[in-house]
Amino acid sequence: MKILILNGPNINLLGTREPDKYGNLSLTDIEAFLKDEASKLGVSVDFYQSNIEGELINKIQEAKSVYDGIVMNPAGYTHTSVAIRDAILAVQIPTVEVHISNIHKREEFRKTSLTAPACIGQITGFGTDSYKLGLIAVCDYLKK
Amino acid sequence: MKILILNGPNINLLGTREPDKYGNLSLTDIEAFLKDEASKLGVSVDFYQSNIEGELINKIQEAKSVYDGIVMNPAGYTHTSVAIRDAILAVQIPTVEVHISNIHKREEFRKTSLTAPACIGQITGFGTDSYKLGLIAVCDYLKK
Amino acid sequence: MKILILNGPNINLLGTREPDKYGNLSLTDIEAFLKDEASKLGVSVDFYQSNIEGELINKIQEAKSVYDGIVMNPAGYTHTSVAIRDAILAVQIPTVEVHISNIHKREEFRKTSLTAPACIGQITGFGTDSYKLGLIAVCDYLKK
Amino acid sequence: MKILILNGPNINLLGTREPDKYGNLSLTDIEAFLKDEASKLGVSVDFYQSNIEGELINKIQEAKSVYDGIVMNPAGYTHTSVAIRDAILAVQIPTVEVHISNIHKREEFRKTSLTAPACIGQITGFGTDSYKLGLIAVCDYLKK
Amino acid sequence: MKILILNGPNINLLGTREPDKYGNLSLTDIEAFLKDEASKLGVSVDFYQSNIEGELINKIQEAKSVYDGIVMNPAGYTHTSVAIRDAILAVQIPTVEVHISNIHKREEFRKTSLTAPACIGQITGFGTDSYKLGLIAVCDYLKK
Amino acid sequence: MKILILNGPNINLLGTREPDKYGNLSLTDIEAFLKDEASKLGVSVDFYQSNIEGELINKIQEAKSVYDGIVMNPAGYTHTSVAIRDAILAVQIPTVEVHISNIHKREEFRKTSLTAPACIGQITGFGTDSYKLGLIAVCDYLKK
Amino acid sequence: MKILILNGPNINLLGTREPDKYGNLSLTDIEAFLKDEASKLGVSVDFYQSNIEGELINKIQEAKSVYDGIVMNPAGYTHTSVAIRDAILAVQIPTVEVHISNIHKREEFRKTSLTAPACIGQITGFGTDSYKLGLIAVCDYLKK
Amino acid sequence: MKILILNGPNINLLGTREPDKYGNLSLTDIEAFLKDEASKLGVSVDFYQSNIEGELINKIQEAKSVYDGIVMNPAGYTHTSVAIRDAILAVQIPTVEVHISNIHKREEFRKTSLTAPACIGQITGFGTDSYKLGLIAVCDYLKK
Amino acid sequence: MKILILNGPNINLLGTREPDKYGNLSLTDIEAFLKDEASKLGVSVDFYQSNIEGELINKIQEAKSVYDGIVMNPAGYTHTSVAIRDAILAVQIPTVEVHISNIHKREEFRKTSLTAPACIGQITGFGTDSYKLGLIAVCDYLKK
Amino acid sequence: MKILILNGPNINLLGTREPDKYGNLSLTDIEAFLKDEASKLGVSVDFYQSNIEGELINKIQEAKSVYDGIVMNPAGYTHTSVAIRDAILAVQIPTVEVHISNIHKREEFRKTSLTAPACIGQITGFGTDSYKLGLIAVCDYLKK
Amino acid sequence: MKILILNGPNINLLGTREPDKYGNLSLTDIEAFLKDEASKLGVSVDFYQSNIEGELINKIQEAKSVYDGIVMNPAGYTHTSVAIRDAILAVQIPTVEVHISNIHKREEFRKTSLTAPACIGQITGFGTDSYKLGLIAVCDYLKK
Amino acid sequence: MKILILNGPNINLLGTREPDKYGNLSLTDIEAFLKDEASKLGVSVDFYQSNIEGELINKIQEAKSVYDGIVMNPAGYTHTSVAIRDAILAVQIPTVEVHISNIHKREEFRKTSLTAPACIGQITGFGTDSYKLGLIAVCDYLKK
Repeated sequence: MKILILNGPNINLLGTREPDKYGNLSLTDIEAFLKDEASKLGVSVDFYQSNIEGELINKIQEAKSVYDGIVMNPAGYTHTSVAIRDAILAVQIPTVEVHISNIHKREEFRKTSLTAPACIGQITGFGTDSYKLGLIAVCDYLKK
Repeated sequence: MKILILNGPNINLLGTREPDKYGNLSLTDIEAFLKDEASKLGVSVDFYQSNIEGELINKIQEAKSVYDGIVMNPAGYTHTSVAIRDAILAVQIPTVEVHISNIHKREEFRKTSLTAPACIGQITGFGTDSYKLGLIAVCDYLKK
Repeated sequence: MKILILNGPNINLLGTREPDKYGNLSLTDIEAFLKDEASKLGVSVDFYQSNIEGELINKIQEAKSVYDGIVMNPAGYTHTSVAIRDAILAVQIPTVEVHISNIHKREEFRKTSLTAPACIGQITGFGTDSYKLGLIAVCDYLKK
Repeated sequence: MKILILNGPNINLLGTREPDKYGNLSLTDIEAFLKDEASKLGVSVDFYQSNIEGELINKIQEAKSVYDGIVMNPAGYTHTSVAIRDAILAVQIPTVEVHISNIHKREEFRKTSLTAPACIGQITGFGTDSYKLGLIAVCDYLKK
Repeated sequence: MKILILNGPNINLLGTREPDKYGNLSLTDIEAFLKDEASKLGVSVDFYQSNIEGELINKIQEAKSVYDGIVMNPAGYTHTSVAIRDAILAVQIPTVEVHISNIHKREEFRKTSLTAPACIGQITGFGTDSYKLGLIAVCDYLKK
Repeated sequence: MKILILNGPNINLLGTREPDKYGNLSLTDIEAFLKDEASKLGVSVDFYQSNIEGELINKIQEAKSVYDGIVMNPAGYTHTSVAIRDAILAVQIPTVEVHISNIHKREEFRKTSLTAPACIGQITGFGTDSYKLGLIAVCDYLKK
Repeated sequence: MKILILNGPNINLLGTREPDKYGNLSLTDIEAFLKDEASKLGVSVDFYQSNIEGELINKIQEAKSVYDGIVMNPAGYTHTSVAIRDAILAVQIPTVEVHISNIHKREEFRKTSLTAPACIGQITGFGTDSYKLGLIAVCDYLKK
Repeated sequence: MKILILNGPNINLLGTREPDKYGNLSLTDIEAFLKDEASKLGVSVDFYQSNIEGELINKIQEAKSVYDGIVMNPAGYTHTSVAIRDAILAVQIPTVEVHISNIHKREEFRKTSLTAPACIGQITGFGTDSYKLGLIAVCDYLKK
Repeated sequence: MKILILNGPNINLLGTREPDKYGNLSLTDIEAFLKDEASKLGVSVDFYQSNIEGELINKIQEAKSVYDGIVMNPAGYTHTSVAIRDAILAVQIPTVEVHISNIHKREEFRKTSLTAPACIGQITGFGTDSYKLGLIAVCDYLKK
Repeated sequence: MKILILNGPNINLLGTREPDKYGNLSLTDIEAFLKDEASKLGVSVDFYQSNIEGELINKIQEAKSVYDGIVMNPAGYTHTSVAIRDAILAVQIPTVEVHISNIHKREEFRKTSLTAPACIGQITGFGTDSYKLGLIAVCDYLKK
Repeated sequence: MKILILNGPNINLLGTREPDKYGNLSLTDIEAFLKDEASKLGVSVDFYQSNIEGELINKIQEAKSVYDGIVMNPAGYTHTSVAIRDAILAVQIPTVEVHISNIHKREEFRKTSLTAPACIGQITGFGTDSYKLGLIAVCDYLKK
Repeated sequence: MKILILNGPNINLLGTREPDKYGNLSLTDIEAFLKDEASKLGVSVDFYQSNIEGELINKIQEAKSVYDGIVMNPAGYTHTSVAIRDAILAVQIPTVEVHISNIHKREEFRKTSLTAPACIGQITGFGTDSYKLGLIAVCDYLKK
């Protein structure tokens, strides 16, 4: 079972970016941590991050016959990207949406997700653990 | 570490209630399943369900010195209960909100949660696995 | 054929409560009147009233194998109760929503019903006759 | 006692029009059925249908000294006609609004009625029985 | 100078219709009164009333080479008729919109006029004097 | 019969201010024109203009036992002044609201009037003739 | 294959009506042009125009066994007619909605179409060519 | 003169609950303080608190012939309870709504009160003094 | 301790202005009544009323080193004055907002207060007693 | 005459992507089909597809002196891209917006187009024929 | 070249008013600083501040033949004053709107400016430097 | 001191793009002009323009240890880009948002800026001078 961990804009700055909101771990730290978790679950994970909406769409399209599931943090594109939503619906790969901070505690415009209705579900607010929970969620889903 | 699994209105009907939306497991099945998961995580769990908003609030208040964390599915009260939100803020017990179905895929009024901003985070859409993920999430949170 | 007549908050005050809006009959009067109507229709009726939202939900759940139909006046909970809506959807008992006053003639917030979409239909504005019409409606529905 | 059964646009197509929403009975079938019901109630009924908003208004105006009550299904004009609302208010004939389908279960724009506040009340969702219930309702009203 | 006095739905009921809102004069009374006023102003007036939106549009179109100005009370169509608005824009006859009652004192939906932006101006609230003022207004406009 | 012609902010600039919207006549020209019209109607008129909302309110209050009616152009305060609305309601002097341009043809925020519901009626769009029509309207109203 | 070209209010004024928005061709010119286009496509066309909403509905109903497809410009009724929408859904004749001007470039209220969801699709903005494109569209659709 | 002090959900946690918002006094402290104030005013007070919306309604109904006035803090139910509003309107006991924190300084949804229009008035923002002011207010009201 | 009683537009008309809404006491009566209440509380009071928004702001600014607290009824400026809100925030004098009528029972636009978030709290609906309650409230606040 | 066929995000997946909504033809199939149609019309066509919003903008800018017209399906960017709208306005190349599915039949957010007001017109709902119709439309437009 | 620096309500309190939002400089300090900047730019500046909306309008009107440009901080009137907007449009003096704090970072109601559309442009967020930038902007504008 | 001048989509077309809105200077002209201004201010400037949202984000991220400040015109992304907003917040480089045209004078959707709350301030409406003013603003800010 192969899972793609897909990260949207500014996630590459984790660790230095508003640490009170997003924590102190860098994206490399998180990737190491998730590799670990993945091996415990007996699955393999790959990572991809881009600040460009269309490159995220390209990656989702290419994932089609390569990955069994996606754990995706669309970051700033969560609230505005019809195109990422359409991409997930188009490739039909089971996808879990995750957010580091609790989007329900923040600005009004962050409470709505255009991409979540195209996903199995959404996990929000558990810091970098959101990724781990997303990984477990997508694996459990695929096993059924 | 003691965790309270708190369920709101109509969750007692699980298994027979709109099975295409909520799955075939009964609440007893889920409780058995969660007992198992809890023992794997080395924590103990108690269960409480009520259809009465104020009884849920009573339980949250009583949880204060008894439980370390709460996994809560406020069901129909998610979208309308200022009072449950206030109860969680009042007792300051780390709480995870979970939903069986993906609330972002359903009616407009189910997309907003009045209670989620009072919780650590929210997990929605993974069927009865949402509870398991919630349990892991609250345990991880408490360990830090 | 057994029908449950279910009444929400403040309906127990009928007769004394704002008589220009709700008429002069007490709940006991209405129950007597409906017993009569029921016997004409050849069905039996039971009555239940509560001011507590969750008790109404409890009653709807218990009605499952006991009653063939429900005539329900959710009163003040009509406009805010996702949980009663979910309860009706969960038990799948044919339900008719009735209102004594014409909700379309009153405050803006009384025009929307969260519970009506879970019912067969809605009857509003005919004073205590709304109950009688609801009884006929649910019986006709059950005969088909 | 003379009652006018007034039908708005496309009601003349009943029976062939989206039968899953509106049932299999034609308007002629319904008229026969209502004649029967009327004779049981000891009242006489006349029928009028038009696709033209203004002709419905003309009929309401002419009804003034001819009919004691109106059972009206304004169909598509329910949600947009200030002029039909004004006509009912102008002639002051007791009027009951009926709908075959449950308007609360359909598109957002069908949930609001501009005409209902000018009526005694509204009955929605009972198929062609909505007319029968409307007939009973208006007769009961007139007897008081 | 020839002026058309155009009246929309239910205006033919004036005198008997909600007299506290619309006064006691019948449409015939008003027409007599306006004939008088017109002769004082040295203009001739014709009258047309219909309850049918499209007939009002027909009349506006036919008015093209016959009338120099229109005084129009679109009544219930004021708030919903894009088509009457388009008709006035199409024929380019100077038109004054009048209302008997003060639309700013009534229901929310009566405060907006879809037709007024196609007119020179609007006069609202002066009872049947609104027509007289409209007549003066359109004559003054045409003299310039 | 004494009438007060009350003008709000920037009306003193008429003639030089956006002549395509407001015409070429100065406020002095209009006052002369209205004096003439008033003498034809056999009434006397006084004039007051201020750019200060509270001074307009002061004037309305002082008008109480001095004037029989008011013709008022609240200009920019039309859309925001609860206080002028309250002043008119407080003194109960019959008041006509007038506007030079057709407020229904302009920016969205100019379509709503907070002051009009406190007046007999509103006249909008007839250039400086709006004042003349307002004068006639208030005189006709006072004669009844 | 027989196609009905159905035109709503004020379309009969084309050529003289706001030519900068709607072009210089009269309805007769357009009908001649469409006859030509129809013969190229090997289909026959009939024309119908009315300013009366209900007559358009009558025509749609009568079209049932006579025409294979409809090209319809509902004009001013596009944005307000639930009844025309219902008529198209009732007769189930493939219908294409066309507009001469680009409705997305105009007033806010012209951007929404109540009728388009009942049609195959919508073509807007190509002047009188919108009809030609609509004709091709409905023919192509019927051939499949 | 007997006054009921009625408290809604989570008020029983006062003193420990978010002390920066709600102060350090417990509900028992407040009750003692109010007993004192009441005896100064020469009235007697009783206390009731519940987290259950329907129990608050029950209490309001039972208050009918027992209490002369009510001082009520509906807490989280303030913004959502049509049923409490209806209960106060039904029993017609003079009621004063009080809030500890200033609801106008908090989240958007706390600024609207569904219950206040059923009360004499509302007092908000004075900490536990809001109760004392409410007590004075209801006594002054009853004396008139 | 010196308290300023500050009144906004039209409050000078009290006693004659819509007595059913605002009572029969004149502003002079109220001032006498409040002087009395003040002496009971052992504080001195001064009075200021203006119809001019900016003069109220001037007074608030001048109050800075002169008064310990303000009891303010901003009347019609309550709902629109950002500038009064800013003035109170600027001078940081403890201020209580009072209203004679219950603003929650009136027009929609009177329910929101732009100035209340800058005050300690708000008291609304107790007639002229609102001032007395405001005086007690501000004194209690200053004593702490 | 050279026409650019420009396709936005996920259009490259056509044929495999939700075939019930978007049909079974691949983008290559459509390009072949359009080449054919273009040669019938005597024009040449080029194709460009990108998932990246900014690359679509780049292409529109480069089109300036190369293409006479554009047929564009902005797909998911239709509803959110101010930048594509600005690009079309900047280069002033006649552009037709096309959509495969009928956007008026889908989610609320798909009904508004930010890009259509910058185009000649919009064609929506005819499957892959929308492109063909768009091609005819832009050619007809360029011939005038 | 003569420039008027116009300041709205509460700007006279600068230095003492919420210094974290508005800085520590007094209005006198700012005026001295701007005199300096003006002399560097070779222009003369005058200053005017008022808390009264109508006095600001008076000043704008009097500025007509005296000043070449205006730098204006309408403060609290920015968001509500149609009358100041109209004054600027009436006198047609090039005006720059400035704000000390960044209005986009503050309450929702401060993000909209009713006055900015009447100005050349708006500068917001640079503390007292906003004035200096406004001065440069208006001078540059006047030189062209 | 090094400043980055960052330009968003379509800014590379300046000079040829809608010159009445955006002026006649090309981006190269502006860069030359700003180099001049920068040297006067004793700072160095670099330029970057992209039509791709994600590339702008990349550039902002890379700017971190290279530039002291940013002057940014996000153009069409101003109103929709949560991701650019997040990037600025992440790198914490002082940024000034500039716009050539006055966004408050244009379409409704251009009045809101998602990016401005992440910046020091915003300058809008001064043509290409907006950049010069932005440069001065960011330099002044950095000097403090």
